[in-house]
This record gives sequence, C-alpha cells and structure tokens, in this order.
Amino acid sequence: MPTVNITFEDYEIVAPAETGETILEVANRAGVRLASYCGGRGVCRQCEVVITSGAVQPRDRAHGYQQPGPDAQGMSVLACQSVVTEDVTVQIPLRSRAEDFTIRDTEPLPSGLVDLARFLPISALTRQFVLTLPQPSREDTVSDLGRLKRGLLAEDPEVEPVTIELPVLRELPLSLRENDFKVAVAVTDSGPIRKISAVRPARAGQSSLGLAIDVGTSNVAVQLVDLATGETRGGGMRRNGQIAYGEDVISRIIWTQQAAGRLDQMGQAIRATLSEILSYLYNRYEVAAEDVIAVAVAGNATMINFLLGIDSTPIRRSPHTPPASALPVLEGGKLGLDVHPQAAVFCQPAVSGFVGGDITAGVLATGMYESEELSLLVDVGTNGEIVVGNNDWLMAASTSAGPAFEGVGVEAAMPAAAGAVTNLYYNPDKDVVEYETIDNQPPRGICGTGLVEMLASLAATGVIDRSGNIDADFDSPRARQADYEPEFVLFWPDEAAIAEPISIRQHDIDNLLRSKAAVLAGITVLLANLDLAAAEIERMYLAGAFGASLDVDKAVAIGLLPDVPRQRIQVVGNSALAGAYLALMCRAGRREANAIASSITYVDLSTDVRFMDEFVASNFIPHTDLSRFPSVDV
Amino acid sequence: MPTVNITFEDYEIVAPAETGETILEVANRAGVRLASYCGGRGVCRQCEVVITSGAVQPRDRAHGYQQPGPDAQGMSVLACQSVVTEDVTVQIPLRSRAEDFTIRDTEPLPSGLVDLARFLPISALTRQFVLTLPQPSREDTVSDLGRLKRGLLAEDPEVEPVTIELPVLRELPLSLRENDFKVAVAVTDSGPIRKISAVRPARAGQSSLGLAIDVGTSNVAVQLVDLATGETRGGGMRRNGQIAYGEDVISRIIWTQQAAGRLDQMGQAIRATLSEILSYLYNRYEVAAEDVIAVAVAGNATMINFLLGIDSTPIRRSPHTPPASALPVLEGGKLGLDVHPQAAVFCQPAVSGFVGGDITAGVLATGMYESEELSLLVDVGTNGEIVVGNNDWLMAASTSAGPAFEGVGVEAAMPAAAGAVTNLYYNPDKDVVEYETIDNQPPRGICGTGLVEMLASLAATGVIDRSGNIDADFDSPRARQADYEPEFVLFWPDEAAIAEPISIRQHDIDNLLRSKAAVLAGITVLLANLDLAAAEIERMYLAGAFGASLDVDKAVAIGLLPDVPRQRIQVVGNSALAGAYLALMCRAGRREANAIASSITYVDLSTDVRFMDEFVASNFIPHTDLSRFPSVDV
Repeated sequence: MPTVNITFEDYEIVAPAETGETILEVANRAGVRLASYCGGRGVCRQCEVVITSGAVQPRDRAHGYQQPGPDAQGMSVLACQSVVTEDVTVQIPLRSRAEDFTIRDTEPLPSGLVDLARFLPISALTRQFVLTLPQPSREDTVSDLGRLKRGLLAEDPEVEPVTIELPVLRELPLSLRENDFKVAVAVTDSGPIRKISAVRPARAGQSSLGLAIDVGTSNVAVQLVDLATGETRGGGMRRNGQIAYGEDVISRIIWTQQAAGRLDQMGQAIRATLSEILSYLYNRYEVAAEDVIAVAVAGNATMINFLLGIDSTPIRRSPHTPPASALPVLEGGKLGLDVHPQAAVFCQPAVSGFVGGDITAGVLATGMYESEELSLLVDVGTNGEIVVGNNDWLMAASTSAGPAFEGVGVEAAMPAAAGAVTNLYYNPDKDVVEYETIDNQPPRGICGTGLVEMLASLAATGVIDRSGNIDADFDSPRARQADYEPEFVLFWPDEAAIAEPISIRQHDIDNLLRSKAAVLAGITVLLANLDLAAAEIERMYLAGAFGASLDVDKAVAIGLLPDVPRQRIQVVGNSALAGAYLALMCRAGRREANAIASSITYVDLSTDVRFMDEFVASNFIPHTDLSRFPSVDV
Repeated sequence: MPTVNITFEDYEIVAPAETGETILEVANRAGVRLASYCGGRGVCRQCEVVITSGAVQPRDRAHGYQQPGPDAQGMSVLACQSVVTEDVTVQIPLRSRAEDFTIRDTEPLPSGLVDLARFLPISALTRQFVLTLPQPSREDTVSDLGRLKRGLLAEDPEVEPVTIELPVLRELPLSLRENDFKVAVAVTDSGPIRKISAVRPARAGQSSLGLAIDVGTSNVAVQLVDLATGETRGGGMRRNGQIAYGEDVISRIIWTQQAAGRLDQMGQAIRATLSEILSYLYNRYEVAAEDVIAVAVAGNATMINFLLGIDSTPIRRSPHTPPASALPVLEGGKLGLDVHPQAAVFCQPAVSGFVGGDITAGVLATGMYESEELSLLVDVGTNGEIVVGNNDWLMAASTSAGPAFEGVGVEAAMPAAAGAVTNLYYNPDKDVVEYETIDNQPPRGICGTGLVEMLASLAATGVIDRSGNIDADFDSPRARQADYEPEFVLFWPDEAAIAEPISIRQHDIDNLLRSKAAVLAGITVLLANLDLAAAEIERMYLAGAFGASLDVDKAVAIGLLPDVPRQRIQVVGNSALAGAYLALMCRAGRREANAIASSITYVDLSTDVRFMDEFVASNFIPHTDLSRFPSVDV
C-alpha cells in the first residue's frame, strides 16, 4: 500500500496513512481525538475538519461534502467520510475536537437517597473479617478451609453456606502460614451463597473499600466507599469513552455488529474509561486497587452487556428482552476492572432491554416501591426512562431521548464542573446573560440545569419561538446567522473563560427540544395507558444529569415535565448511583433491587401509535396543547 | 555454552546437549524415556545407563558411580548423576527404560460397589435438560435467563436456586436464538446451589457423558459414564506420568519445591496423563470432549492438590492438614481437562493430607459408614490407608507403603493386562513356575495379585526365608547371583513372551516386604490405639491394585493382612473409582462423601512410637510373632 502523510496542523503531528483510509481512522490512531458520535457513518456531522493543503476524496457521496472552510481558507469536510490519496494538511476547529474526557469530582450522593437505615443491618456486598485462627495441631487437624470457615462462623453464623473460588483456594495454605494464621478474609454475598473472595495479611488499619458505579451512556460516575462504615471517600466522573462509537445505545450496538472484534473493543472502551476514573480516585484518596473488594454497578442493559462482553443484538429487536434480569455476582478480574481480581461485582438487575439496572437502582433509591403514594420517576439520560406506580404495582417505559441534556450534541454544553453555568437568565434590556457558575469561575460552558434554564429564558424573552426557532432578527447582535444556521451568543469571549464565543445554535435547540419532547411524550402515553392524568401523580422524581439546583418551574415551563404542582416534584440527581451505593452496602438493598426488577411491567412505547403523535405535539415549548400547562405563562 | 552430542544408540537418536547437563535431562528432552522415580536425586537408581564411548563426569560424588557395564562393555552410570562434557554414546538396558505408559482397558466396576439404588433418585453431578422454550413476545418479555430458568423449573422445581457463569451467560442470547429456543441445558449441582453450565443446540440422541477418575500416585484410571442412565461405556488406565518426578507423594512434593515453575510442571504431567487416557476413550467410544459435562475425581490430597495447582508443602508438615476437606465444584476448563470447558468437577473430599478423597470414596462405595458391623478398609496403594469403624464412628490412618504392589520399583511387575501373571505357584519338584495369565498369553510380567502369590509361594517352598532373603544356594538354576544381588528366575526366555528372563531380585522382595509391613503395622497400631484386636473385625475390605482374583489366604499368609477368618475379608479392587462413580451419579452420594470426610478422625501414626517397632516386626513373613497368625502354616 502506498503511504501518504496527514499533517494535523494544530497538534504538530504528522501521521502516516495508507491510501484509502479515512482522516478519522488516521486521527484516532495518531491520538488526535475528533468528536464523533455516530461511529463514523457520516450522520452526526461532528467530525468536520478543514483541509488546508492537498485534497481528499469522498468515501460516500451521499454523506461526504466539501465546501469552503471558515474564512474561505481550505475546504470543510467530514473526517469520517474523507479518504486520503495524497499528502494533506488538516485543521481541526475547536467544535470538532473530541469530548472533554477530563475527570471531575462529583458531588456527594444526596443524603435522602442513600439512607442505610432503611436496610439495617448493614451487610456490604463483600465484608472483611479480621481473624486470628488457631494453628493446626495434632488435636486440631481440620483442613485449612475448614479452619477458616470455623473462624468466620464464630464471627457470623449467617456466613454459611460459604464456598471458595479456585484462585483463592490455591493461595490459601501459604497465605495462612505466611501470616501465622492472622488474616483479613473478604467474604462476598453471592445471593444464595457466600464466597471467600480474598485471604490477605491482617494489616493494622486496613480498609475494605468498594465502588458504586453508574455506567451511563454519556457519563460514567464512580463513588469510592468504605465498606465497613458506608462512608464515601469521594467520587469522580468522566464522559463514557464509548461515545466515539455512537452517541446512543442503538448506534453503539450497530457499530459492534459491523465487524468482528468490535464487541471487545466496545468493552475495552468502558474499561479504559473506568480505569482512568479509578486511577484518579486511587491517587487522590491514596488507595490501592487491591483494597477494593466489591463493586456495585448500575447501567442500562446495553451498557452492562458491553461491560460483560454480551452481544446486544437481541436487545434491539422487539420485545427487547435483556440477557438476564438479576445477574450473578461476578468477579472484577474477569471483567478487567482495576480492583482486587476476586472483587465481587453486583450489577443492578434490568427489567427490559430499555429499562435497565440504572432504573431499578433509581426505584430502589427513591423508595417509591414501598410508598402508597402514586409516584413517577423520570430519568432524563440518553434514554429517557419512566416508572410509575406504588407499593402495589410498577410499570415502566423508555423513550429515546438522546443525550442533549447530558451535553452531548450541544456545542456549548459541559459537565457540572468549575466554570459550568448552572443558572442563567437572558436580560434583554441589558442584552446580557445573567448567570451563576460552579465555583464562580467565568463561564466555560452550560451544564444540564443551565440548558433547561437557557431554553426557558430564551423562550420567555422571545429569542426562540414556541417551536424553538431562533429569531435571527431578534434585536441583539447576539442573535446572528452562523455558518449554516442561526445562533445566539450567550457569552462573548470577553464575558467567558474561553477565546471563542459560547453560543447556542439552531441544531442545539432542536436537539434539546427533541429530548424533552421524547420524555414528555413518554410520560403522557405511559399514563394514558393506565388511564391516569398527570394531575393524579402524588410524587414525581426527576433523575438524571441534573444537579439538586434545577429549577422545577423551568423544567415544567419548557415542557420537559408535565404541569403538576411543584411541591410534588423532587429533583434527585443521580439516583442510579445512589441505588448502586445501597446495593453495595446492604444485603436487603440487593434483594430489594432484584425483587423490584421482577415486579416492574415493561410497556413498549415504540409500538404504541399514540407515541409519535404525542412526540410531535411535545416538540413545542411547552406543548401544542397549552391547556395541559395551565400554570405556565406563555 | 559449548554444545556436545549424546547418541542414544538403541533409539538412533543424536541429541545436542550443553556441557553440564545430565544425561537424564537430555534424554527427557529428546523423548528418550528413562525410568526414574526419585526426581533425579540419585536415590532410586532406576536410570542406570551404559556409556559405550566417551566419558561423563559425576554430578555428585556421593551418588554418582561408575563401574564396568554388563559384558564389561562400557561403564554403568546413573543418568541423573552424570554430567556431559564431551560427545558420548549411551546404551539403555531394558530395565532402565521408562515405565510402560500404555493405556489399558479396565475391568468394569465391581457391581457390589456401584449400586445406584442406594442413593435414589439418581441425580448426576450435571444433568442435561432438553427444553423447547416459548419465543419472547410483547406479552412475554421475561429475560433470556429468566426464560431458561422458567423452563428448567417446569422440569424440576428443585433446580432453584440456580445461577449462571459469565462465559455461559455471554453465549446465552445468541445460542437461544440460533436454535429457535430449543436447547439442551446442562445444570450442575454445586452443592448449595445449581449452575447452568452449558446451553447447546438440542440434537437428536445427544448424550450427556461424565467421567469417574481415580488419580492414584502410580496409576490413573478413568471410567466413561452415561449421565442419563449411569451405564459405563468403558474405562482406561495408565501409569501416572508424574512418576518421572518421584515414585511417592513426598518425593514429588520435594521435587516441586526445588525450583519455580515445578508445581505447574507437575500439574501438566497429570493433565497430560489424563489427556492421553481421554483421547483413547473418546476415540474408542466415539465421543466428543464437548459432550463430557461432569467429572468426579478421587485421589489422595497431594494428587488433588497437583491437579488443582495448590502448593502441597503444608501437607508434608505435621499435622498434615489438607487445604480443604470438601472442595468446591470446579470447572473442567480451568483445570485444563479435555472436557466441556464448563464441565463440573467434583473432587472427593479429603480427611487429612494422608487420608484423601480416594479413601472417603472407598468408604462411600463399601458402605461401611452405614453398617453396624465393625469394618476395616485397607487400601494398598503407594500410600497404605486404613479406615476402621462403623455407622457410629470412623478412624483412619495412613502409612507410607511405597508402590511395590502397584508394580513400581519391582522390575518384573506389570499392570493387569494381557500377559500379566495373576496366579502363580513355584513347583520345586518340576522346577517350574505354574501360572495363569490374563488372556492366557505367555507371561510378560507379574501384576499385583501375582506379586502376593509369588511371595507366598517362594516363602512356602523355601526359595526365600522368613526375612525374605533369597537363598542363593537353593537347589535350582533359577536361584542365582545377579550383578549385585541374588535373584530368582520365574520364567526363562523360552517360557515367556519376552527375550530376557523374568526374574525377581532381592531388592524387589525387600520392596514388597516393606510395603506389606507398613500396611500390617498400620493396621495393628491403629487397632491398638482403639484397644481392638484383629479378631474383632467383622468385615475387612481390601482395596487397591488387586483384582477380584486375589487369594486372601495368601494375603494373610505373607502378612499383608492380619489373620482374621477368611470369609470376613472381601477384595474390592478400585473402591476409589467406584466412589467417584457414585458421586458422579448421585446427589446423595456427593452429600454422603462430604459427611464421611468430616466424620472420620485422623490418627497420625508417624508420631506413634509403637509404629516403628511394629513395622520392623512385620518385616517378616508373615510376622516375627507367629502367634498372631495361628492359621498360617509356616
């Protein structure tokens, strides 16, 4: 194969390429990270680059396009659709650079959701027992394993029935003797039985640590937990590295089906993401991976499948049955996690392919399954999931919301970190956006709560109309025509922390509206199925990327949520992570999670004719039918 | 390193060697298999070879010896103690060639020991269910695993609690769909829970097969069993390839301790031995390894440790505690066995480091733990193990018998195969040995029962005295002085199937006497510990290499067994294999095996001062104290 060179100007990288390769493929190999959410299919149009010297060939005329770049220097092309045949030089605009994969500290879990007192006695997924066993003697010839079990039973008679895995058994005779029969023994609760998962020297002050993990389609969050006390040491989160293979679960499943080995690659991507978060946490909190002996994971069925290496093809097909609801307790080493190789891994059970363990975790954390109140849990993630019910019955549905409120596909969005705008209000009189940011830093981007407020404020001030169209004639220089579409500049460079304007474009607004419409339509149709009206909901939990600071008035004002009395709405943040934490710490929590999963009935909205009508009607602010939003002043 | 060449004359092999290597090391590498039972320590003196050109250097003057070879051609040396420094040519006498590792068919298990009716209902370690499951639909959205469990529960409500291992779960969604939800499901009984261990296409006439395995120190025997019916398809046995690393468990443990990686090598040796037997059986009975889904193994604690990759150092130290008594059910793939990767492996539980799973299997098979009769089980293997007791109590001891009755270290010995002498009687009047052989072939060697008869006959006719000394002046050309010791020629070349005389040498007799003395002393001291006399034994089971044809009169006559009424003695053959079979086929059998192991009390004879006195006194035929053998006519 003849070889050509691609020069990535801004990175000072010259990468060799074979003719016929796409720029995206070469960039990935060279470590130049381009935005790409569609798996290189030319659909998401995120990977636009500018060719400043040389020329490329389109891979697929239907998707490939070339047109003059900004400032008419060079040609704009999609990197995934452009094939190299000669040496070229490439510029990468800021907006085409990959997601910000920086790891950020997360807020503590909301105390209301992680009340261990609900599940006493505390009994972590893996418990550590520090034992001093009698040495073998002629009078006491019981086997090593028998001796260990005897010691465990003296501490807790409920350890039986207990077994041991081969790798631990192999080490047992020497680890007992090298430590003079003084050992720290990790015992995992595998459901019907217990397993001895590690036998280690009993060191003074040795901690036993666990992880609560939420593997979201867009974001992955981890809490580091002391298993003895339940205290959280700290948490971190990061974008899910699988975003490079598709922004939603369907794109990612399709991507894994397109070539052999891709299911492994997808699993590798989540392992790499977790690995980065864990090494950050281990460093920051001075923890050894070996001391992490239990993990509880919440995630939708596809995310869990990818982590476990299970083909997700059947999930795509109706009726979207997942491989398993309650999953067996697995081992960290076998999943390639940076924890003790025998660490126990509990996965929150799924209801269906599209109502996953993140949702059962949320139901567990909110406690709605124990309450007589008719409750509604709405999780606004990349998939929108809705659960309605009480202590008698629970029904769930899912809706393909897209990741806009998680900041994916919205150029000005960013995670909830320093400089992220959480509250904003456009003041047309002063032609300025008033705002609050995290840590009071100058604005760097808008986080989830900020996006809701932005929509509400732009709609209230007429910058956008009820259909979400930006009024290019709005009386402000902030409203202007961008390259191909209208945009509204929220912060000029001198108002912000970055050198480019922070603006919202028409397609960003469209993405946000589609997301909120999918959620609202999902709620409406699920309730309609049950002959319920929104007003009958006694308690509504809003979960998802939103922090506790979300203004529920605004969420109703844009029509993300139905118009119910505000005091009934509770913003709960990451309830999936809270549920994972409860399962990590409490045996009863794990049992309840499995019971919840088997008690929820799944309703498939994709085959419900009303859904598409409701989705179209909900693509307005707040809705085409204003009578449903009496409290909203339009 | 300079390289020299070793020419193995009889094999026409020229093997390159580095100077400083021993002949044994080079021979092993070149595939020239030399007898060696001590792990190359110069102790067993089995690897004697003749250097016919060139010269070798002694590795260790204490062990190495050189002297003129037979017919004064070349020098005789021990291959393990001779280091090469120049090109040499080596001749290998017949007696120094490695064990016969040929695989032989085994006799069917004795029907009295394998009566499944004792443990009804039959419930194999792994059971295969053939299911036709309903396809997922909007009305029936249960998960794949849930669907499978539902199908299993309809067949057998006792399948719960049931779990699944990750590799099987990974395949589950596609294997269900590729087979239109018609599948053969293997479910393993893991003790407190069940495990789904394979999900495969439901083929017509598909068998589910299992293996009962006896891993003996000297011999490994396997029975291929139909798990649905309990019928045995056939069996094979072979010498244990670990013999190259030592003839008894202690030598082998020492060998593994001498260098890193040797524990793996030892495990590899047993895997290779099993692999050869299995490929023989699979071929002969037209079986696919994939169809073998369950394995039950009996073996002493060290053999099981080697198979499982567990360091056996602690077993050597008093009080010889094994790593575990009841072992968890393991997976064939993880043990490197040529069976279905998820095949269940049940190991018979050990009582102590020296009373292993082979003995608990024997107790299970004989049923002595259920009987009111005071019974004694004697297993004459490389270790002699003794169990005494009834349905109230059981005590056990072990004694280092050595492998002489298994034919190891006795030059004229061979396994029970065509041409093996089973009965023999020396007729001094005709100066001929009258005999029976297996398949009526001309004699090729003597098997276990033949060795007992030989001792009895030679003693009765005065060829050997009560101390076992061969009378070199005995009036027959058969009694003669061999190279360094007296020998008695049992069969001249014209009486036998091989070109060399089949003779018994003084050291062979000494080995056999030591073996029988260890067994008898063990029985005597264990009974003395309990204030019991041999006459009080109501039932005596003799297990070990002996076939059902052993003459118990002769076993008493040589003092292998104490003098009890003959009708109380029952020769049971390989009761370890029979016990493994029962555990393979019956849930109650597995439960009983574990209960037996925990109910047996181990008595450590090695610290009993009476043992050495009794051993010395038993090194006579039948014993120094003839009053203990009133029925024996000396």
